[in-house]
Amino acid sequence: MMTELVLHYAPDNASLSVRLALEMQGRPYRTRLVDRRAQAQRGAEYLTLNPMGLIPVLETPSGPLFETAAILLWLSETGAPLFPPPGAAARGPALTWLFWLSNTMHTGLRARFYPGQFPFASPEETEARMTALLDMAEAHLAPLMAAEAPGLLDCYLAPQLRWLQLYPGPGWPPLSGWPNLEALAARMEALPATARVAEAEGLGPRPFTAPQPCRPKEGAAL
Amino acid sequence: MMTELVLHYAPDNASLSVRLALEMQGRPYRTRLVDRRAQAQRGAEYLTLNPMGLIPVLETPSGPLFETAAILLWLSETGAPLFPPPGAAARGPALTWLFWLSNTMHTGLRARFYPGQFPFASPEETEARMTALLDMAEAHLAPLMAAEAPGLLDCYLAPQLRWLQLYPGPGWPPLSGWPNLEALAARMEALPATARVAEAEGLGPRPFTAPQPCRPKEGAAL
Repeated sequence: MMTELVLHYAPDNASLSVRLALEMQGRPYRTRLVDRRAQAQRGAEYLTLNPMGLIPVLETPSGPLFETAAILLWLSETGAPLFPPPGAAARGPALTWLFWLSNTMHTGLRARFYPGQFPFASPEETEARMTALLDMAEAHLAPLMAAEAPGLLDCYLAPQLRWLQLYPGPGWPPLSGWPNLEALAARMEALPATARVAEAEGLGPRPFTAPQPCRPKEGAAL
Repeated sequence: MMTELVLHYAPDNASLSVRLALEMQGRPYRTRLVDRRAQAQRGAEYLTLNPMGLIPVLETPSGPLFETAAILLWLSETGAPLFPPPGAAARGPALTWLFWLSNTMHTGLRARFYPGQFPFASPEETEARMTALLDMAEAHLAPLMAAEAPGLLDCYLAPQLRWLQLYPGPGWPPLSGWPNLEALAARMEALPATARVAEAEGLGPRPFTAPQPCRPKEGAAL
């Protein structure tokens, strides 16, 4: 028997991807707010769950798991499938792009949000790199995702498209410049699971295609 | 039936992790040298295999796969197991650290090797961050790995420990400062698979605990 899953989250943080997957699976879980304004993610208690001090953590029967993409894979393997299973022809390419979303796209976003942690030489270079990554995703990742039902890759990509438009501030060229990615954002937005998560975290009516700043019921995004 | 696997590699590049896994599995594969001196990884032909222009690519029956850690997981799922399987208690933590090695440790190493691509504000900051990551791996990852037989995490970690000591130049504090990591490097070094790979790529007799510059039979590391 599965014991209870506890998601340590902050509104509109990387925990959003995990929450979307949990809701798509219709799986029971509890949430525990990490108070970012008090820097709780750097506190002694939280560091026992994730020594990196990053959000999210998912408490599981296998212990506390961190790394967003690792949690996503684990969820799909222990509940309703949201990813091609081992042995499927689509598995290898899906793994390739899941790691790419983690170590390239997500890392690139973090460089934009937290220039103090990732002190790149110039904002222009960071923006140019992000544009190149979006072009890459538009050409190669989007067709692969569109051929499958929404799943883990959508849970990971759609929030990244949201954050790109919202943080660190408005000004990104509109998502319509990448029509394949916009279509993926729209299909994810249409899911009942997304509506439930958007309500819980105050993400507004169109969280991925026309995102508004987060107005959460509890906690704060930043 | 499995068709032939083709590893696009350069000596002592990230392809090393994949080659170690293939040799540990005793699996048939061919190699194809990517001529880094001619920047072949940025050429039109290679970009059809990996649009990111990075080494390695593994050609498989599911198409060309890239992202080192994705290839490692795929190999373990389609051949001799080198990683806790779905459903195992060790699976979740192993996935967590596989992603961490990919998006945090490996990315940190790339920042040291290629400061032009990752123009961090100062080398001192990059070094301080790397020291913190090694401390993290020493305390949290190494015990988890030591509890299991050598597998994918070793294939990924041991080369990273090698590169840390070799590139961009000598001067890193000796690995003995992290005794748990040094023990893992030593156990990986003792495997016959490692001896075969070291011979093929000219990595010297102690490629992970006392690395020497690569003297490959073909191609060049940089």
